[in-house]
Amino acid sequence: MKNKDLITPRKLQGFWELMPKEQILFSDLLNKLEIVFKENCFLPLDTPILEYSEALLAKSGGETDKQVYRFTKGSTDMCMRYDLTVPLARFVAMHKNELNFPFKRYQIGKVYRGERPQKGRFRELYQCDADIIGDGELSIVADSECVSLFEKCYKALNLEVEIRVSNRKILSGYIEEIQMQDKSTDVLIVLDKIGKMPMEEIISQLKDLGLSENQCKNLISIIQTNGKIDDVCNSLKKLCKNALFLEGISELETLSTFLSAMGTKSIIYDLSIIRGHNYYTGTVFEAFLSGRKELGAVGGGGRFENLCSYFSESKMPGVGMSVGITRLFDILLQEGYFDLSKTNEIDCAVINFDDTLLESLSLVQNLRENGVRAEIFYENKSFKSKMKEANRRQVDFVIIVGENEVKTKEYTLKNMKTGEQSTHPIEEIVTKIRSERMASATPYENC
Amino acid sequence: MKNKDLITPRKLQGFWELMPKEQILFSDLLNKLEIVFKENCFLPLDTPILEYSEALLAKSGGETDKQVYRFTKGSTDMCMRYDLTVPLARFVAMHKNELNFPFKRYQIGKVYRGERPQKGRFRELYQCDADIIGDGELSIVADSECVSLFEKCYKALNLEVEIRVSNRKILSGYIEEIQMQDKSTDVLIVLDKIGKMPMEEIISQLKDLGLSENQCKNLISIIQTNGKIDDVCNSLKKLCKNALFLEGISELETLSTFLSAMGTKSIIYDLSIIRGHNYYTGTVFEAFLSGRKELGAVGGGGRFENLCSYFSESKMPGVGMSVGITRLFDILLQEGYFDLSKTNEIDCAVINFDDTLLESLSLVQNLRENGVRAEIFYENKSFKSKMKEANRRQVDFVIIVGENEVKTKEYTLKNMKTGEQSTHPIEEIVTKIRSERMASATPYENC
Repeated sequence: MKNKDLITPRKLQGFWELMPKEQILFSDLLNKLEIVFKENCFLPLDTPILEYSEALLAKSGGETDKQVYRFTKGSTDMCMRYDLTVPLARFVAMHKNELNFPFKRYQIGKVYRGERPQKGRFRELYQCDADIIGDGELSIVADSECVSLFEKCYKALNLEVEIRVSNRKILSGYIEEIQMQDKSTDVLIVLDKIGKMPMEEIISQLKDLGLSENQCKNLISIIQTNGKIDDVCNSLKKLCKNALFLEGISELETLSTFLSAMGTKSIIYDLSIIRGHNYYTGTVFEAFLSGRKELGAVGGGGRFENLCSYFSESKMPGVGMSVGITRLFDILLQEGYFDLSKTNEIDCAVINFDDTLLESLSLVQNLRENGVRAEIFYENKSFKSKMKEANRRQVDFVIIVGENEVKTKEYTLKNMKTGEQSTHPIEEIVTKIRSERMASATPYENC
Repeated sequence: MKNKDLITPRKLQGFWELMPKEQILFSDLLNKLEIVFKENCFLPLDTPILEYSEALLAKSGGETDKQVYRFTKGSTDMCMRYDLTVPLARFVAMHKNELNFPFKRYQIGKVYRGERPQKGRFRELYQCDADIIGDGELSIVADSECVSLFEKCYKALNLEVEIRVSNRKILSGYIEEIQMQDKSTDVLIVLDKIGKMPMEEIISQLKDLGLSENQCKNLISIIQTNGKIDDVCNSLKKLCKNALFLEGISELETLSTFLSAMGTKSIIYDLSIIRGHNYYTGTVFEAFLSGRKELGAVGGGGRFENLCSYFSESKMPGVGMSVGITRLFDILLQEGYFDLSKTNEIDCAVINFDDTLLESLSLVQNLRENGVRAEIFYENKSFKSKMKEANRRQVDFVIIVGENEVKTKEYTLKNMKTGEQSTHPIEEIVTKIRSERMASATPYENC
């Protein structure tokens, strides 16, 4: 093929693609989350990436419509999924009679959003979701299970987080009490600016919406309430006697009792947690890397009233959690959380001579079967070039297989860091390399 | 929402979606393959599902063009990938200078083919690919590594297979020798009908293409050659002295020497293995479930001359293997290979009373942390309805948590199969349930 016919290899803008060492780390995180989901009795689901547009866009607003990858093939109008929740609703509505309820499912998969590419935003991203769906009703125990699962996820990723928990009914109750339900979204939009704008400006904007000085003060005081459950509830109870408001406080107290029984450790009750304006109706929660609140939430979830409202007349309340693993991994990479130079692609190199190739191939197989990632550099011809390649790849150990080694079945093991060289049968080599790997592994290497 | 506004929940035709128990089994198979790839020093890659159409369709023929999911968004013309090989070529061409060669990568991911839906054909399917890419050259050792890896994949899936191996140069050499290169594809199409059509008809069609009686006989004799490496090579060597033909035999012999050193056990040399008409140029192989050749190949692979020819002037030979896991799983499901009734979603149910809920939640957490998938039926109100639910879900064990159990920290464990009931501290319960699970597990449950 002539040069002029070549196509420049490019990947689509805004699409994520990791280099192998990064991918080793990322895949390991996904595996760790999957183990947590399984251990906690969540069932796997793997819905198609494409769905009928009719189903996928049923509940979406204009913003989603614009961002979604939608196209037709033949007479079929379809979309790539933009989250894992709508496909879950479609699945549950289709198979309601075959599933056990509460239905606990997890799904780890890619979703697609044609957003303008920018830092920390991706057009293809992983979601790691776990949801509990009830048939008709769903106990607050489910909320506590979800929050506890959420905590376990970050623990499995070896990350220290604060999990901030609230209940949307408290704020909604107060807004109802002051008869501002119709302007609820506007009020929440203003409140969301706390910390980003001077407080006088916040109050002035709230007043513009029709709130009194006292109502502004109360609302801001609610939003700024956080800490231990008793303190939070005691200070809130003084503010308002609205039934929904009190129900929210009561649910938060119940949740906290269950969470204590479940042994959660990183929970902070924090009324500033709202999570969007429409979807969630009760418990809401978000995770923040400890001491790094400025990075924003790295996951969250909450209680919703009815998963399948667009597909079915049955009421199916649910509670779910989602780890924003693509953005989280991007942050961790940028913050230098991983030591990529310590992420070895292989554990050792087997260095052969021309007449010991067959024995070396056999040795490599034997090592791999025993959990040692052994490689043989068959493209490098001379002993010298093989050793050079081992150095270039920063291999910790080489095993030299000469004529003598083949005869005695004892191989020369060279520690490339220390230069130490010794002779061992294969079992000893396996033990030495594996224990060295365990000792030097970062939490993420040792998979 | 009124009934008339409801959307019928449907999934796209030809798209695969498993029910939870099936998905447990399928995910487990994918995990097992991933472990094999990692153990053998293949690096993970996770390319986007979407690619520029220009890149994705560079090498495709008309058939692919028709089947591919292609669309534009804004001014971008893009496609959903139809295999994992073209994205690999694009990636290697982009990152050639950052990768170690031979570059060994695996990718497990979905691909998209808008085929007419039919039995055993899916529009969204998983591919499990592993390839070794060389920079300029690539030893036959790579071929043997791929075949050996391929064997290990099926072993990990606990499937007995025959792996049938050939070398395309042998047939190509003979076709060159009889000067039928220009009609090579036509000849191969006729030969592919052996077994599906009477031999006289085959010979007649070959003659129509211009072959002599003797050439027909030789060609059929080549295709029908199979068995042990020495027998295969000895009987072939008599037929022709063409250089390419002899090179193919020699490569096959070298491959077999390496495979023996690597300890492969299920290899049959079989010249009827061709694998398509264009892509593969040397070693080719396919796997068949033992004694079930009629089901067709359940995976395959081979050597190709140049991965990146459409993107780069560098010559990058490679050898790859692919397990057709979606079709394979579909066959296994249909053949009743899995006992879904033995695939438990949970190991045990914790049955609480109203006043022991908190202790029971704590117990459930404790059990899960110790690897027991324990569930609590918080939607069922009475003891009776909780026990009924445990029966309905075919739970092997229930743990009853009454007031007395809370005091003594010894819990009543009931074996639901035998009816046996005994009292134990939690550590003993964990041991009992885990050992029972190990004993009764099918190879696929025990994940």
